[in-house]
Amino acid sequence: MSASSFQLLKTSRDSMARRGRLKLPHAVVETPVFMPVGTQATVKTLSPEELQDIGAPIILSNTYHLHLRPGEDIVAEEGGLHQFMNWPRGILTDSGGFQVFSLSSLRKISEEGVEFRSHLSGEKRFLGPEDSIRVQNALGADIIMAFDECPPYPADDEYVRRSLERTTRWARRSLSAHRRVEEQALFGIVQGGMNKELRRQAAAELTELDLPGYAVGGLSVGEPKSLMYEILAYTTPFLPTDKPRYLMGVGSPDDLFEGVLRGVDMFDCVLPTRIARNGTVFTRRGKLVIRNAAYARDHEPLDKACSCYVCRHYSRAYIRHLIKAEETFGIRLTSYHNVYFLVNLMHQIRAAIESDSLIAFKNEFFREYGFITADADV
Amino acid sequence: MSASSFQLLKTSRDSMARRGRLKLPHAVVETPVFMPVGTQATVKTLSPEELQDIGAPIILSNTYHLHLRPGEDIVAEEGGLHQFMNWPRGILTDSGGFQVFSLSSLRKISEEGVEFRSHLSGEKRFLGPEDSIRVQNALGADIIMAFDECPPYPADDEYVRRSLERTTRWARRSLSAHRRVEEQALFGIVQGGMNKELRRQAAAELTELDLPGYAVGGLSVGEPKSLMYEILAYTTPFLPTDKPRYLMGVGSPDDLFEGVLRGVDMFDCVLPTRIARNGTVFTRRGKLVIRNAAYARDHEPLDKACSCYVCRHYSRAYIRHLIKAEETFGIRLTSYHNVYFLVNLMHQIRAAIESDSLIAFKNEFFREYGFITADADV
Repeated sequence: MSASSFQLLKTSRDSMARRGRLKLPHAVVETPVFMPVGTQATVKTLSPEELQDIGAPIILSNTYHLHLRPGEDIVAEEGGLHQFMNWPRGILTDSGGFQVFSLSSLRKISEEGVEFRSHLSGEKRFLGPEDSIRVQNALGADIIMAFDECPPYPADDEYVRRSLERTTRWARRSLSAHRRVEEQALFGIVQGGMNKELRRQAAAELTELDLPGYAVGGLSVGEPKSLMYEILAYTTPFLPTDKPRYLMGVGSPDDLFEGVLRGVDMFDCVLPTRIARNGTVFTRRGKLVIRNAAYARDHEPLDKACSCYVCRHYSRAYIRHLIKAEETFGIRLTSYHNVYFLVNLMHQIRAAIESDSLIAFKNEFFREYGFITADADV
Repeated sequence: MSASSFQLLKTSRDSMARRGRLKLPHAVVETPVFMPVGTQATVKTLSPEELQDIGAPIILSNTYHLHLRPGEDIVAEEGGLHQFMNWPRGILTDSGGFQVFSLSSLRKISEEGVEFRSHLSGEKRFLGPEDSIRVQNALGADIIMAFDECPPYPADDEYVRRSLERTTRWARRSLSAHRRVEEQALFGIVQGGMNKELRRQAAAELTELDLPGYAVGGLSVGEPKSLMYEILAYTTPFLPTDKPRYLMGVGSPDDLFEGVLRGVDMFDCVLPTRIARNGTVFTRRGKLVIRNAAYARDHEPLDKACSCYVCRHYSRAYIRHLIKAEETFGIRLTSYHNVYFLVNLMHQIRAAIESDSLIAFKNEFFREYGFITADADV
């Protein structure tokens, strides 16, 4: 028996958007879904109960960070990440690859894996596919990711090709190293940079492994949005329709729409909690910088169109006061609201897929939010 | 009709400890009670719902801070502090006097009031009894405090006498300035430093005003604990038995016991949230510095004897990890636990008064906690 099962409930008539249901050991996830990020075994400022109130069925946590601190053995001693952080629903851990490349210094890539220096202690460490999977098996998330390299943007095709081929070999080694197949679903990651032929090749080789899900990695790394959408739309058709598709690290409201319209089922991003800490919140009428003096005497909720806990109980003036006074309850409130905003947006997107009105909903949302509607090929 | 009423339910046989019930516009407060401090209209890191879960019927907020930021007019525009901070239960605001003397610079005391420089903007401000009461009327707390000077320790008797006499005149002016007598109970503050005769004089003059409650101020300002207990035990008998007595700024576990045993009904202190932010927590076996390496693999709750939300769901290892990783959820958890610890301790103290077993409970608690039982005259 495998750890996950995916049911494709509906495919849109007028786009690649899909409505699905992903069953995991700790959650039934209605897709498309946005996964809040809990890098260090906590979604910054929020409690597990708040995340449940918000309606998040699954969160992401980071293998690289938890491996360095507190260490997967300490987490495993408590029975795994779910117990450690008191989160009863779904968890996805990434492979650690992305952080090894983006956070650590002096990394040395070989066929075996990556030697790097910890961004915390400076000490020399090594992470390869077997290590990543061993750590992820110890953490015990519902979904784990194959170890990969995410090439930078821009990168020359030859580098991307060699990196990609190694990533595919690492995916095979990740699968061989996986010891908890019945409890944790291992997803592969399609790389290939901005090169369509390499994306096709990556998808073809990876899908041979018949994994329970596939991610598209290496996008949203600095390329223009139009290029990201183009590569994404080109790549997803090479992935099996009966498996969930996960677009890594993407989560601005416009990208969620554009990703769904190109056949993506799962998203994650630190954006809602990161901008919340700077006192910026999402609203249906665009982003709002609550620190601004304009809101000092504004007794309206953050977003009049929102019915979250924060918008039902607190004013802009109060939240601005808290943030100006450097009270952490302020960033709790902005974080709660922002995560709710994206989780609730996905709820609305799912409803729009069901009623075949996603493009109309997107146009309405973009107009109200202030996005220029992309004239993209969806 | 007055804003508050106090019912003395029981006086201990073997000490001055009292069990009472204080009815306020927003709360019925069982006394003795510990009031968590929400300096800037938020009890640091905690939500109003969490404070209700903890069982706190009343919190304190600071007039000086709210006057400077965001300003009482902004709070009043939302209908007052209860609405502003989404706290439906009791609130007490202090007079601002203590912070004017401890936080601001260049203060100049005159009969009229105090000229000072804001610790935030550096600008020159003035606060006198009429201003303090006007601000507190605008904030709308259930209990407000007369404007007072809290003399430093040590101070010479002549200074304390002059300060005290002015404080008494300020109390009369505070009462005259009070515009919301039916909605807010104005408490007076007994000063007098460490001089018993001045304490007696202060209590005698202040009680002539027949206020709905009296605070003992100017203790816990650096004097030895034995001296504080001595002055407190001397002072409370000069206060009417049918009015609540509030010992300002006191809240360590031993001081709560010693205060109750000397006839105090109300306490407030920043201690539980302040030490929580440094990763220190109360337990029945004494304080514990959760940051310490000793707790890295400790999978027990913070306090095995505690049944709070934090102790039911999280391990020392997880909380230590959060604090080491500078995750604010860590200080949410330590803050929650510490506030619960004191609120729950008062609950146990009330039960012990009811069953005439407070001294036995104190001895047991002190032994377990590691305090040396004070051989004090109670």
